[in-house]
Amino acid sequence: MKKLINRVEDVVTDALSGMQALHPELLRVDFENQIIVRADAPIRGKVGLVSGGGSGHEPLHGGFVGHGMLDAACPGAVFTSPVPDQMLAATRAVDGGAGVLHIVKNYTGDVLNFEMAAELAAAEGIEVASVVTNDDVAVQDSTWTAGRRGVGVTVLLEKIIGGLAETGAPLSAVAELAQRVNAQGRSMGVALTSCTVPAAGKPTFELGEDEMEIGVGIHGEPGRRRAKLASAAEIAEIMVSPILEDLSLKSGERVLAFVNGLGGTPLIELYIIASELAKTLRGKNITIARSLIGNYITSLEMAGTSITLLRLDDEMVRYWDAPVHTPALCWGM
Amino acid sequence: MKKLINRVEDVVTDALSGMQALHPELLRVDFENQIIVRADAPIRGKVGLVSGGGSGHEPLHGGFVGHGMLDAACPGAVFTSPVPDQMLAATRAVDGGAGVLHIVKNYTGDVLNFEMAAELAAAEGIEVASVVTNDDVAVQDSTWTAGRRGVGVTVLLEKIIGGLAETGAPLSAVAELAQRVNAQGRSMGVALTSCTVPAAGKPTFELGEDEMEIGVGIHGEPGRRRAKLASAAEIAEIMVSPILEDLSLKSGERVLAFVNGLGGTPLIELYIIASELAKTLRGKNITIARSLIGNYITSLEMAGTSITLLRLDDEMVRYWDAPVHTPALCWGM
Repeated sequence: MKKLINRVEDVVTDALSGMQALHPELLRVDFENQIIVRADAPIRGKVGLVSGGGSGHEPLHGGFVGHGMLDAACPGAVFTSPVPDQMLAATRAVDGGAGVLHIVKNYTGDVLNFEMAAELAAAEGIEVASVVTNDDVAVQDSTWTAGRRGVGVTVLLEKIIGGLAETGAPLSAVAELAQRVNAQGRSMGVALTSCTVPAAGKPTFELGEDEMEIGVGIHGEPGRRRAKLASAAEIAEIMVSPILEDLSLKSGERVLAFVNGLGGTPLIELYIIASELAKTLRGKNITIARSLIGNYITSLEMAGTSITLLRLDDEMVRYWDAPVHTPALCWGM
Repeated sequence: MKKLINRVEDVVTDALSGMQALHPELLRVDFENQIIVRADAPIRGKVGLVSGGGSGHEPLHGGFVGHGMLDAACPGAVFTSPVPDQMLAATRAVDGGAGVLHIVKNYTGDVLNFEMAAELAAAEGIEVASVVTNDDVAVQDSTWTAGRRGVGVTVLLEKIIGGLAETGAPLSAVAELAQRVNAQGRSMGVALTSCTVPAAGKPTFELGEDEMEIGVGIHGEPGRRRAKLASAAEIAEIMVSPILEDLSLKSGERVLAFVNGLGGTPLIELYIIASELAKTLRGKNITIARSLIGNYITSLEMAGTSITLLRLDDEMVRYWDAPVHTPALCWGM
């Protein structure tokens, strides 16, 4: 296992120390509760946005804490759900009296723990709503999930509803937009290599020198099938076809196209996938109105990519374009 | 070789197509001349900033084309200098009458070709100045270079002088600030793995399962020595010590700390390196006044990291903070 780490058991805490050291103007790390909180939280009258999940997917979620996006993030151990106590502490830390929305990726542990945290917070008088993302079209159920997995749309959702929450919109409106973004987004990923969880010390799965895993999950969980490595054009097609079908995207519609790297794939390859994706969409008269490319929801050092398409409406575009200032996404301010 | 590519000979062109498709508001790709040009170039009265180099280091340089940074970038084949014709075409495309600055990383091919392009442009009546970056403290000469190699400081320089150029400052002032940034920045990198140039089809060098290359170059060229893999704390120390010594950084000074990923290393590990770097600087009473973390000057899918420290002055801080809108760096607008 070749990693830039100290002790395996300190990986998450050491990384949090790095976040604290580099971004003091944006966030503070509460090491006792193992949460990342926006520097100016809680903000009176603003809906607090809390997300979280296992570590190993950076910058998700901690890298999205800041103005115009998340108010707090709860990082679990690598590929392990955070615990309800973290989520409760985060909920308390960001409650500005307007309620708190939990943004939960659909994995069994995350869902159960966020539910428990929401109950505990409600018992303290904090109004909590939740949205569960489940945009991965690859598989219906998986080793980690009942129903579809939550992946790339989570990033887009956190940005878009972060923009709305910043305006002082009520919890019901923020939750409603969150549900709409999730409903209009679909994703699929392909892995060229496995990744190694530090505590395991060996690759999560084995993949032959000429193989790829189609529909891989962000923890390396199995996808639809294993296949021989193909060209970027073919791989893009394998990902985008089920997305287009599932979203029933039609000629004349516009999307946000998100080409995501899984951690070990260089940007030059992501742009090649983007080129193929753009060709396919052009051929169907679907407009790429907004885009995002880079490593935003990763699986440690896994080589591979995922594509997320989000059918845009005017409100989504407005809040996508709204100012954001976080370690990983920043524009407009 | 496991890569998301089509034909090996189309890697750069395909990636350029992806850039064109995703960022039409920021840049245009001139496929005939194989250059990336800012969408609104040339800008009357503004010094044009042109950089370039081999591909495989993305987002450097094409990802830095846009408002507040580069006016054009010339991508060569992977790890191969662009040719003078590309540089000349880029120089012409961005000349708004105030002259053009060439930003050249110190590699023999790049330096020679940019010199030739500058002569050709001068013969056409375009005023051209050049800055050659050479911030890598690892080795004095290398397989690719006479003198030190230009690495991470190039990114910081392009941002900072991009801010100044946007104000309409004259070529002499922009060139002077560029020289100062280069003089005040130092870098060093460590590789945990090699990378594979598509046209070669096999790793550039071999590295044992428990080995790292200290002082590696961004083309995989040898560094100072090979050593057994060590902890993140030790690796950070190996990189930062020669930088601090070479820069003669003293207690009370402030720096921009840039923790760069070489392409295959996940962000969680970069933050662990950042944590160790911050500890070292804190111990010496050196302030991290600004920071940058992520994959900005890469070596395809190489696992590893480099640290760049830049001694800041007020002018550098002002133009670092100035608005920028490029595919890879964006803030303030």
